[in-house]
Amino acid sequence: MAGDQVSNKQVILRDFVEGFPKESDMYIATGTVRLDVPEGSTAVLVKNLYLSCDPYMRNRMSNLVGSYIESFKPGSPISGYGVCKVIDSGHPKFKKGDLVWGMTGWEEYSLITAPETLFKIEHTDVPLSYYTGLLGMAGMTAYAGFFKVCFPKKGETVFISAASGAVGQLVGQFAKLTGCYVIGSAGSKEKVDLLKNKFKFDDAFNYKEEPDLNAALKRYFPDGIDIYFENVGGKMLDAVLLNMKVHGRIAACGMISQYNLKQHEAVHNLIQIVVKQIRMEGFIVFGYYSQYPEYLEMVLPQIREGKIAYVEDISEGLESGPAALIGLFSGKNIGKQVVAVARE
Amino acid sequence: MAGDQVSNKQVILRDFVEGFPKESDMYIATGTVRLDVPEGSTAVLVKNLYLSCDPYMRNRMSNLVGSYIESFKPGSPISGYGVCKVIDSGHPKFKKGDLVWGMTGWEEYSLITAPETLFKIEHTDVPLSYYTGLLGMAGMTAYAGFFKVCFPKKGETVFISAASGAVGQLVGQFAKLTGCYVIGSAGSKEKVDLLKNKFKFDDAFNYKEEPDLNAALKRYFPDGIDIYFENVGGKMLDAVLLNMKVHGRIAACGMISQYNLKQHEAVHNLIQIVVKQIRMEGFIVFGYYSQYPEYLEMVLPQIREGKIAYVEDISEGLESGPAALIGLFSGKNIGKQVVAVARE
Ligand SMILES: NC(=O)c1ccc[n+]([C@@H]2O[C@H](COP(=O)([O-])OP(=O)(O)OC[C@H]3O[C@@H](n4cnc5c(N)ncnc54)[C@H](OP(=O)(O)O)[C@@H]3O)[C@@H](O)[C@H]2O)c1
Ligand SMILES: NC(=O)c1ccc[n+]([C@@H]2O[C@H](COP(=O)([O-])OP(=O)(O)OC[C@H]3O[C@@H](n4cnc5c(N)ncnc54)[C@H](OP(=O)(O)O)[C@@H]3O)[C@@H](O)[C@H]2O)c1
Repeated sequence: MAGDQVSNKQVILRDFVEGFPKESDMYIATGTVRLDVPEGSTAVLVKNLYLSCDPYMRNRMSNLVGSYIESFKPGSPISGYGVCKVIDSGHPKFKKGDLVWGMTGWEEYSLITAPETLFKIEHTDVPLSYYTGLLGMAGMTAYAGFFKVCFPKKGETVFISAASGAVGQLVGQFAKLTGCYVIGSAGSKEKVDLLKNKFKFDDAFNYKEEPDLNAALKRYFPDGIDIYFENVGGKMLDAVLLNMKVHGRIAACGMISQYNLKQHEAVHNLIQIVVKQIRMEGFIVFGYYSQYPEYLEMVLPQIREGKIAYVEDISEGLESGPAALIGLFSGKNIGKQVVAVARE
Repeated sequence: MAGDQVSNKQVILRDFVEGFPKESDMYIATGTVRLDVPEGSTAVLVKNLYLSCDPYMRNRMSNLVGSYIESFKPGSPISGYGVCKVIDSGHPKFKKGDLVWGMTGWEEYSLITAPETLFKIEHTDVPLSYYTGLLGMAGMTAYAGFFKVCFPKKGETVFISAASGAVGQLVGQFAKLTGCYVIGSAGSKEKVDLLKNKFKFDDAFNYKEEPDLNAALKRYFPDGIDIYFENVGGKMLDAVLLNMKVHGRIAACGMISQYNLKQHEAVHNLIQIVVKQIRMEGFIVFGYYSQYPEYLEMVLPQIREGKIAYVEDISEGLESGPAALIGLFSGKNIGKQVVAVARE
């Protein structure tokens, strides 16, 4: 197979996006690719199996200046986290047949020129797709954000927004395993049921049915919130600030409700940060990847013993990618959104 | 003198305040006081020498529910930090003639029923009034907020709002002594000159003359801000967020621009906390008083060696108290606002 020239379907960004992304902001094109790495290069050539849909990818669709990440290039395939199989390798760390996860293209085959950033997959007794989420970037985000930013203690109250998603469902379960009292918010009855019944949150509510978020939080946390795992921002953050306990902590993981807005929503209650001596801390998972082995050591046994439930929303085929990706911003995904490009 | 009944001028709160406080929200009344403590009590009876005007006192003029501090009582004297001389003591820790600082009444003489919270003044080679600020609450606030919340490093860039005030002037000088690059904002040319010439800030600007605070900060910090010492909140915070460096820290000390507003100003740029991995942390000085001896050990030699400049704005007589206090909210004070009730 290596050395052959084959066709290569790709998801191409049409142009920079403003406002809410649409399916038509991307299109499918078919090019060709040689299934080997150029002579003398240290690249690897991979076959993409599963691609991860992540909210931050929206930012890369904008024309970014001076950001921590680079814009996608209009006319080129977009990229993101994925699980891949090595077809050919010029890099001593990787050989044909290896399974890896990391940054790859939204296409059938990718030439990865900086393979040092890839993680080799050593444990295959769990579904491979898990390495797009639970055992990949989203898992590390939940782990770092909850344990390394919030320093949770047994008995503390934890609130999680976008709680049924890739990151949220894991934070909630890590919090339960820590002995915390955990409540999540999500955008549909089905998701709320999932939180209560599958992920064993202590309680959950549908934020879209709460006209007064402050009142809702007061009802669910009469004594206040010790830890807020922030995934959405805007109005929810403003309401949470009014309900934090003294010395509360907010892990600022993301603010998905703001990503598509030209003018970000107003937050009015920051004085609470002073009055309640709150620590609000932003973090980016990249800085924590050195702790990935430590994370695996914790989480793999929990998965094998059935202590962690994990819900994925797998959409079939690269062609389904654009719809799956933009679905994140209307809450279409139930659990971790994955695109299956190929099964092996 | 002890045991005598004498007249006692007091500053009385007329009624709870809404919006900007006015001089007429307080009035002067004259009662009487016995200059000894009740038989068997552990109270102390003090003569008030200097009273401290502090922005947080505005909050106590409101009808507070469930706050970290109590409301003042309409019809009763207000209270605050002060420097006092013990006239009579039922407490083993204090004796007649001792000098103390801590919570006292805005009146000539006060009966302090919980004297455990008072600090005994051991060093009198510095002006006594300093214990209302540099060697009292404001000093501890600057010390704790800068060193224990921000963890500054040599070479970092520091921005301070309300920089010429009681807390700000000290934070700036601590930052210079730490080897930081320090810029402050203040509300008049006179204050800006003070920052540059007296407190030796690297630069300073008048925020009232900057129609675009974001542009001003970009000019003064082309490479961004490592540490923001937040005294004012609102628009300034919003602009600062756009100019923080990655891994920047914001010590949320106070938000004086918001204390008199019914609806707090909107802040729109909190996404920067995620993107730049900023830590914003509120703190209240009360939690740090156990480190007061450590602070004195650091700062007293610096004062004696002339390494710390300190500007006070002393208004004469208890009658001048209401005007001095409300002056904080229009920036009338140049440096630490003190009311001198008696010199000894
Ligand atoms: N800091 C980091 O390193 C890092 C890493 C990974 C992810 N993140 C952030 O973590 C958050 C969750 O990411 P994820 O991968 O776990 O995504 P996800 O939760 O699986 O999917 C996104 C979910 O966000 C919710 N949502 C969308 N628009 C919303 C709005 N306007 N208001 C409220 N909720 C909205 C939807 O759920 P509902 O149906 O419940 O509304 C949607 O299903 C995002 O903010 C993301 O950017 C940060
Ligand atoms: N967390 C704590 O434990 C703690 C302890 C002490 C103080 N604090 C806080 O620290 C801050 C400074 O206190 P301080 O005692 O040092 O007071 P200060 O700076 O000596 O006096 C207040 C100053 O605030 C400025 N100001 C007033 N209204 C303003 C507005 N609308 N916008 C911008 N600036 C305004 C004025 O200076 P300009 O002329 O420059 O405008 C005024 O001189 C306050 O927010 C206070 O509440 C917190």
